[in-house]
Amino acid sequence: MREIAIINGPNLNLLGVREPEVYGAETLQDINQSLSELAEKLNLSLRFMQSNAEHEMVNYIHQCFEDQISGIIINPAAFTHTSVAIRDALLGTQIPFIEVHLSNIHAREPFRSESWLSDVAIGTITGMGSIGYQMALRYWDQ
Amino acid sequence: MREIAIINGPNLNLLGVREPEVYGAETLQDINQSLSELAEKLNLSLRFMQSNAEHEMVNYIHQCFEDQISGIIINPAAFTHTSVAIRDALLGTQIPFIEVHLSNIHAREPFRSESWLSDVAIGTITGMGSIGYQMALRYWDQ
Amino acid sequence: MREIAIINGPNLNLLGVREPEVYGAETLQDINQSLSELAEKLNLSLRFMQSNAEHEMVNYIHQCFEDQISGIIINPAAFTHTSVAIRDALLGTQIPFIEVHLSNIHAREPFRSESWLSDVAIGTITGMGSIGYQMALRYWDQ
Amino acid sequence: MREIAIINGPNLNLLGVREPEVYGAETLQDINQSLSELAEKLNLSLRFMQSNAEHEMVNYIHQCFEDQISGIIINPAAFTHTSVAIRDALLGTQIPFIEVHLSNIHAREPFRSESWLSDVAIGTITGMGSIGYQMALRYWDQ
Amino acid sequence: MREIAIINGPNLNLLGVREPEVYGAETLQDINQSLSELAEKLNLSLRFMQSNAEHEMVNYIHQCFEDQISGIIINPAAFTHTSVAIRDALLGTQIPFIEVHLSNIHAREPFRSESWLSDVAIGTITGMGSIGYQMALRYWDQ
Amino acid sequence: MREIAIINGPNLNLLGVREPEVYGAETLQDINQSLSELAEKLNLSLRFMQSNAEHEMVNYIHQCFEDQISGIIINPAAFTHTSVAIRDALLGTQIPFIEVHLSNIHAREPFRSESWLSDVAIGTITGMGSIGYQMALRYWDQ
Amino acid sequence: MREIAIINGPNLNLLGVREPEVYGAETLQDINQSLSELAEKLNLSLRFMQSNAEHEMVNYIHQCFEDQISGIIINPAAFTHTSVAIRDALLGTQIPFIEVHLSNIHAREPFRSESWLSDVAIGTITGMGSIGYQMALRYWDQ
Amino acid sequence: MREIAIINGPNLNLLGVREPEVYGAETLQDINQSLSELAEKLNLSLRFMQSNAEHEMVNYIHQCFEDQISGIIINPAAFTHTSVAIRDALLGTQIPFIEVHLSNIHAREPFRSESWLSDVAIGTITGMGSIGYQMALRYWDQ
Amino acid sequence: MREIAIINGPNLNLLGVREPEVYGAETLQDINQSLSELAEKLNLSLRFMQSNAEHEMVNYIHQCFEDQISGIIINPAAFTHTSVAIRDALLGTQIPFIEVHLSNIHAREPFRSESWLSDVAIGTITGMGSIGYQMALRYWDQ
Amino acid sequence: MREIAIINGPNLNLLGVREPEVYGAETLQDINQSLSELAEKLNLSLRFMQSNAEHEMVNYIHQCFEDQISGIIINPAAFTHTSVAIRDALLGTQIPFIEVHLSNIHAREPFRSESWLSDVAIGTITGMGSIGYQMALRYWDQ
Amino acid sequence: MREIAIINGPNLNLLGVREPEVYGAETLQDINQSLSELAEKLNLSLRFMQSNAEHEMVNYIHQCFEDQISGIIINPAAFTHTSVAIRDALLGTQIPFIEVHLSNIHAREPFRSESWLSDVAIGTITGMGSIGYQMALRYWDQ
Amino acid sequence: MREIAIINGPNLNLLGVREPEVYGAETLQDINQSLSELAEKLNLSLRFMQSNAEHEMVNYIHQCFEDQISGIIINPAAFTHTSVAIRDALLGTQIPFIEVHLSNIHAREPFRSESWLSDVAIGTITGMGSIGYQMALRYWDQ
Repeated sequence: MREIAIINGPNLNLLGVREPEVYGAETLQDINQSLSELAEKLNLSLRFMQSNAEHEMVNYIHQCFEDQISGIIINPAAFTHTSVAIRDALLGTQIPFIEVHLSNIHAREPFRSESWLSDVAIGTITGMGSIGYQMALRYWDQ
Repeated sequence: MREIAIINGPNLNLLGVREPEVYGAETLQDINQSLSELAEKLNLSLRFMQSNAEHEMVNYIHQCFEDQISGIIINPAAFTHTSVAIRDALLGTQIPFIEVHLSNIHAREPFRSESWLSDVAIGTITGMGSIGYQMALRYWDQ
Repeated sequence: MREIAIINGPNLNLLGVREPEVYGAETLQDINQSLSELAEKLNLSLRFMQSNAEHEMVNYIHQCFEDQISGIIINPAAFTHTSVAIRDALLGTQIPFIEVHLSNIHAREPFRSESWLSDVAIGTITGMGSIGYQMALRYWDQ
Repeated sequence: MREIAIINGPNLNLLGVREPEVYGAETLQDINQSLSELAEKLNLSLRFMQSNAEHEMVNYIHQCFEDQISGIIINPAAFTHTSVAIRDALLGTQIPFIEVHLSNIHAREPFRSESWLSDVAIGTITGMGSIGYQMALRYWDQ
Repeated sequence: MREIAIINGPNLNLLGVREPEVYGAETLQDINQSLSELAEKLNLSLRFMQSNAEHEMVNYIHQCFEDQISGIIINPAAFTHTSVAIRDALLGTQIPFIEVHLSNIHAREPFRSESWLSDVAIGTITGMGSIGYQMALRYWDQ
Repeated sequence: MREIAIINGPNLNLLGVREPEVYGAETLQDINQSLSELAEKLNLSLRFMQSNAEHEMVNYIHQCFEDQISGIIINPAAFTHTSVAIRDALLGTQIPFIEVHLSNIHAREPFRSESWLSDVAIGTITGMGSIGYQMALRYWDQ
Repeated sequence: MREIAIINGPNLNLLGVREPEVYGAETLQDINQSLSELAEKLNLSLRFMQSNAEHEMVNYIHQCFEDQISGIIINPAAFTHTSVAIRDALLGTQIPFIEVHLSNIHAREPFRSESWLSDVAIGTITGMGSIGYQMALRYWDQ
Repeated sequence: MREIAIINGPNLNLLGVREPEVYGAETLQDINQSLSELAEKLNLSLRFMQSNAEHEMVNYIHQCFEDQISGIIINPAAFTHTSVAIRDALLGTQIPFIEVHLSNIHAREPFRSESWLSDVAIGTITGMGSIGYQMALRYWDQ
Repeated sequence: MREIAIINGPNLNLLGVREPEVYGAETLQDINQSLSELAEKLNLSLRFMQSNAEHEMVNYIHQCFEDQISGIIINPAAFTHTSVAIRDALLGTQIPFIEVHLSNIHAREPFRSESWLSDVAIGTITGMGSIGYQMALRYWDQ
Repeated sequence: MREIAIINGPNLNLLGVREPEVYGAETLQDINQSLSELAEKLNLSLRFMQSNAEHEMVNYIHQCFEDQISGIIINPAAFTHTSVAIRDALLGTQIPFIEVHLSNIHAREPFRSESWLSDVAIGTITGMGSIGYQMALRYWDQ
Repeated sequence: MREIAIINGPNLNLLGVREPEVYGAETLQDINQSLSELAEKLNLSLRFMQSNAEHEMVNYIHQCFEDQISGIIINPAAFTHTSVAIRDALLGTQIPFIEVHLSNIHAREPFRSESWLSDVAIGTITGMGSIGYQMALRYWDQ
Repeated sequence: MREIAIINGPNLNLLGVREPEVYGAETLQDINQSLSELAEKLNLSLRFMQSNAEHEMVNYIHQCFEDQISGIIINPAAFTHTSVAIRDALLGTQIPFIEVHLSNIHAREPFRSESWLSDVAIGTITGMGSIGYQMALRYWDQ
C-alpha cells in the first residue's frame, strides 16, 4: 500500500481560528479526518505533520525519503515564499509532491503568487479550500 | 441538475498530437468522455466547447450567462497570457470558474506563470494532466 | 456631411448587465440612440459597430478607410491593452480617432492604464460614463 | 446655481506664446471667455484661477471647499507629475474634479503619462485642445 | 516537390496603401507574384495565406501540419507581439519556419523588437523589404 | 531651555476635516496644545509652524538654524515624497530631526512609503496618530 | 490590567556586544528593566521574550493570542525582512502590534527598509535607540 | 550688450554655511561678484536671482523671456530632481540655458544624477565648484 | 562595380572548431569562398576582414569610408553586445550595413538578443547559418 | 593553536545522497575527515557543525564568538539566499569568515547567485567541490 | 610648469567628417591647436592623444602616471559607456581628470547618459562643443 | 606534465602601485614567482600572460587551445564585466578555467558582482588576495 505524507506549514494549526473569512471554520484535524476517510477508499496510507518550524519540515522530508514514501501533499503556507531549504529538501530527495493552498493565492497580496516550490512540483491546486487536499490525494488514485 | 461548461482554448484540438512528451497521447475527446462519466456519477450536466478563436470563447461565455449555468471549467491555453477580453467576459458575467492547465505552467517558460484569469477565478489546478479537469469537476460535488 | 464611426469592443454588448456598479444600467442601444440625436444636431452622420472579435474591428477600420469617413470614436475595451493589430489598422489608415472609456481606467487595476492606442489618438476621454462618447462627438463640431 | 472652479497650473499663463505648435495661439483669457459663454448656457457659475505656485493651488482648493462649490476642472500642467500636495488637497476636500490636458500627454515624453491625480479624479480628457475644458464643463450639465 | 506556406498577418492586406514611407508601394499580390517566380526556379511549391484573424492563422497552421508541408515563411505583423496562440500552433506542429519583417523592427517603437516567435524559429530576416521573403525562400534551396 | 520646532506640511491645516476616518477629528490646534503641555513637563520650549508651501518650510528651517534651536519634529505630509529642497535644508543645516506621520504610511498607497527625509532623520514614527508627536518630543527628554 | 508582550528577534541577545557603534552598550536586560519601570507607572503588565528562532516567535504569538493579551511590541530584527510566517501569525491572531527598530533602518543597507510587518502594524518607530520601546509602550497609555 | 541671467535654486543662499566640505566656504555673493568681474571683461551684462521657491523661479524665467535676455545659467539645486514646472518654463520660453552644479552630482546619492533639465539644456557643467559658473559664462564669449 | 565589405568579429576565426553543434563544420575560408562565387554572379566586388580586436574593426570601417565602398555585411559576434565604438563608426561613416548572425541569437542566452547595431542597420538576418551572408549579399542585387 | 569552525547549512547532511550528479558521492563525514587531516598539517584546530535550522546556526555563531575562535568556513546552502539572521550574527560578532559552495552557483538557477553573506565575507569559493573547503582552510595558513 | 593630457577616444579622429550636424566641422587638429594657444596663456604644458583602442588609452594613462602629469581632460566617446578598464586605470593611478563631451549626451540616445567615469571624475562638461575642452583646461588655471 | 595558463587582465600590471589599500603591495611578478614555486611542488607547468588589451587575451586563449593546455586561471579584472569576446573564446575552446579576483568583488561597487565568465567557469575564488591564485592552482592537484 502506497503511503502519502500530508505536510502543513506555519500557522495552519490556527485553522478555524485565523482569518475565518479567508480560510473557513474547519480545523486541521477536521481536514485530516476527511483525508483519512478518502485515503481508505483509495487504498492509500497517510501520515500527517504540521509545524511552524522550517527545519522540522526539512527534517521530516528527509525522514520521508528514508521511509521511501510515494508522495507528499504539502501546504507550505508562509514558507511558500521564503524557504529555499524546503525546496532543496524536496529537490534533493526527489519525492514527487503536490503544492496545495486553501485560498486563491493569486487573489491576495502579490507576493503570495511567488512560490519557491511550484516549478519543482508535480503541480499545484489553489483556492479550493480544504477540498484541495482531497483533489491532490486523488492524483495517486490513477 | 446543475450544468457546468468545459471550455478549452487554442491548439487544444491538437491534444494527442501536439508535444505529446508534455501533454500525453490522450485526445480532447477522450478527456471529455471521462468527464461525462464522472459528471453522471456526480449528478452534474456538462456542455463542451473548444475554440482557437478568442471571440468565440467570449461569445460562448455570454451564452453560458444567458443560460444561467452553474460554473465553468476553463483551460484557456495560450489565451491565459494574452486575453483580457476573456477575463472581462468572466468578470462581467460573474460565472464562478476554475482555471485548469494540463502541464505544470510554473516549470515551463516564465511567461506561462502569468495569467489574466487566476486572480478572478475560484482557484487553479495545474500540472495534473487530464485528471485536473476531473478534480475541478468535483468542486461542484460539495 | 461628415461621417463618424462609433466602434465598441468586446463585452460592451453586455452593457446594462455587466458590472452595473461600474458601468451603469444604460445599454449600448441607449447610448447609440443618444449619440444619433446629438449627431443630428451637429450635422454629422454616424455608423455603429460593436464586436467581440479583434479581426472584425480591424476589418471594419479598413472598410472605414475605403469609405473615407472623417473620424472614429473607439472604446476598445479589453483590446485597449492587448491589440497591436487595431493600433496598426488605425496607424496604417491614418483615420483620426478619439479613445473613450466609460469608467476611470486609472482608478481600476493598474494594467487598465496601459493603452496601445492612446499615443496615436487625437486624445482620450475616460471616466465620464456614456456622456464621454458625446463629448468626443463634439470634437467634430469645431 | 452650481459653481465650478476652473484651475490652471504653472506656465499656462504663457498660452498663446509657449510652444504654439503644441498648444495653439489661443490665450488663457480666450479659453476662459469661451467657457463663461458655455457656462451661461448650461446655467452654471464659474470661478477662474491660474497659478505657477503649488501652494496657491492648494490654498485655492481649500477655499473652494469652504465655499462648497460643486466641482473643479483642473489642468495641473507640470504639477500633474510632481504634486502630491494637490492630490492630497483634492482627496482631503473630496471635491469632484475632472483632469484636463490640452495636448495628448500620451504622445509626448513618457513621464507626461504619469499623473498624481488621475486615479482620484472623476475622469480625464486629453488632447482635445481648449475644447477639452468645454467637454468637462458639460459633465455638470447631466 | 517540397511545399512552403507564405503566411501574412494582420493589416498586410493594406500593403501599398498603409504607411508607404515605411513599407513601400508594392502590394501583397506583387510580392506573392515575385515569390512564385522564384519558387519555380528553386523547384519549390508555394501556398499563400493572409488574414487579420489570429484564429484563422492558427487553423491554417494546423492545416499545414495535416498536409505535411515542408516549411513556413511567416510575417506575423502585429501578432508578433501579442499572439501566444500562434507560437503554440507552430511549437505544437513542429513545422520549421522563418520569421520575416518588411521594416527594421529594431528601428521603430521598442515593443516591436519583442517577438513571441523568434526563439522558436529557424531564424529571422528583418528590414529587407519584400526581398526578405525571397531570402527566406532560398533557405529551402540548400 | 532647549527649543524644538514643530513643523507641519501641506493640508495638515485641514486636520479634523480631511479624511477623518484616516486622521481623526482632532485639529492641529488641539495637537499643538497637547504638545505645549507635555513640553512644559519636559522643560522644553516649542515653536510651531504649518505651511502648504515648500519654500516657506525651507525658509523656516533656515531660520531655525540661525536661531540655533535644538531639534525639529516634522510631519512633511505630501512633501515627504516630493521635496528634495526640504531634504537639502535639513541636510545643510544639520539640525537633528524626527519624521512623524499620523497614519501608517506603509498601509496606504505604496508611494507613501517612499520618503526623501527618512535616511537623514534621527528616526521616524508612523501610525500613532497625534500621540506620535508626543513620542517624538520625549526623545529630547533623554 | 492590560498586558503587553515585548518580543525581540534574532541576535538581539547580543545587544551591548554587537556593533555597539550602531546599537549602543545597553543590554536587552537593561532595556527590559527600564520598560518594566515605565509599565508600572502606566499601569500595564509586561511579558518578555527573545529568540533567534522564527518558529519560537510564531509559537509565542499564538500563545499570546490564547492568553488574550492587549498588544505586542516587536523588534523583529533580521526577521523583519524574511519572515512571512511571523506576518501571518500576527495577521491571523489579529493582536494589535507596534514594530520597533533601534537603529534608523532607512539609513543602513537598502534591504533594511523593506518590512513584512509594517503594513499590518499599528505603526512603526525607528532610530530612537532603546527609548523607542518606551515610546511604543506609551501608545497603550492613551 | 547681451544679458545673461544667473539663477540659483533652493538652499544656495546657505553657501559658505551648508556642508562646506562639499561646497566650500565661498558665499553666493562672492560667486556673483567674481561673475560680474568676468562679465565686464567679456562685455556681457548680468542679472542675478536666488530663490527657495519654485514659482518664483518660474515667474523669473517668464520675466527673462519678456525682457528678451540672451541666455540663462541655472543651478537648480534640489529642483533639478523635482521640478517639471521649471523645465516647462525653460522649454516654453525657449531661452538657451546651461545647467551648472557646484559638486559632482554623479559622485553623490544616485538620485542626484537625474535631472529634469539636462536634456533640454545647451549643456551641463558639474563638479567644478564656483568656477563652473564662469566656464558657463564664457560660452557666450564665442 | 560596387564593392561590399564582409566583416567578421571576434572568435569567428575559430569557425569549424568552436562549438560545431551550434555553428557547423564550415570554416570562415569556406564561407568567404562561397561568397566570392556568388558575388561574381551578382557582379559585385568583395573585400574580407576578420578581427578579434574592436579597434581594428573600427579602423577598418573608417578605411571603408575613405574607399567609398557601397555597403558592409557585418557579423559582429561578441561585439554585438558590447561595442558602442563600432556602432559609432558605422553611424559616423553612414555606410549602409546588414547585421548577420549564424545562429538564432533569440534561442540562446537572453543577452544575445541585445544588439548595439540593429537599430541603425538596414536590417538583420539571424539563424540561417553561413547562407545568411549570401542572403545579405543579394540585398545589393536589387 | 588557532581554531576554525566548519559550518554547513540545510540539506548538506544529505551529501552523497542528494543530487549526486551535482554534488558527488562524498559524504559530509568524508569531507570533514579530509579537512581534519589538512588542519593537522597546517597546525589548526577545527570544530564541525551541520544543521537544518537557521536558529541553531545563529546560536552556534554566537557560541563561536564567546569561545573566541579565529575564523569560520561556512557553506550556508539554502540559507545563502534567505537568512538575514545569519548575516547579522556574522556581522555582529565580527568573526572573519569564508563562504564556500560545492557547486558553481552561477551556473544554476539565477537566485543561487544572490547571497546575503558575500559582501561581508573575507571572500568566496564556489564550484570546486569539497576541495573548496580545503582551499578556504589554507587561508589561515598565511 | 604643470602638464595636462588631452585624451580623445574612438571615432573622434573623424571629427569634421562624422555627423557634422551633431559635432560641427572643426577637426581634432583644429581643437588641439586652439587648446595649445590657450595653454600657453595659462602657462600649462599639454600632451595630446587619440585612439580607437581601449588598451592604448589604458596604457597611455599608465604612462601619464609614470610621468607624473597634473591632470587629464578626457573625451572617452563610445568608451564612456563600455570601458571599466579605463575607469580602473584612472581610479588606480589617481590622476585628477575632467570628462568632456562635445554634444549634449543627455539629449541623445538614453544609453549616452550612463558613464563609467563620471562618478570618479572631478566633474563633467557636456554639450559645449569644442569650447568644452577649453573650459576644462581653465580648471587648472585656479 | 600538465600545463596551466595564468592570465591577468587590464591594470593588473599596476599591482603594488594601484589602490594598495585594496590590493596590497605585492607586484604581479611576486605573485607569479610564488605560483611557480607551488607549481613545481604540484608537478605542474605554468605559462604567464598579462595584457590590457581584450584582443590579446582572446588571441592568447586561442593559442592555449592550439597548444592543448590543461587549464586556465584567469583574473579578468575590468573585462569581467564587459567582455563577451573573452567569454566566447573560453566557451568556444572549452578549456576548463577558474575565475580569480584578488579583492572581494561583492563588497565593492555593485557592478563588480556581475561577471560574463562565472557561469561558464569551473568555479570562482574571490577576496583571498594573491593566495587565491594558489588555491586555484591546487584544483589541478586533485
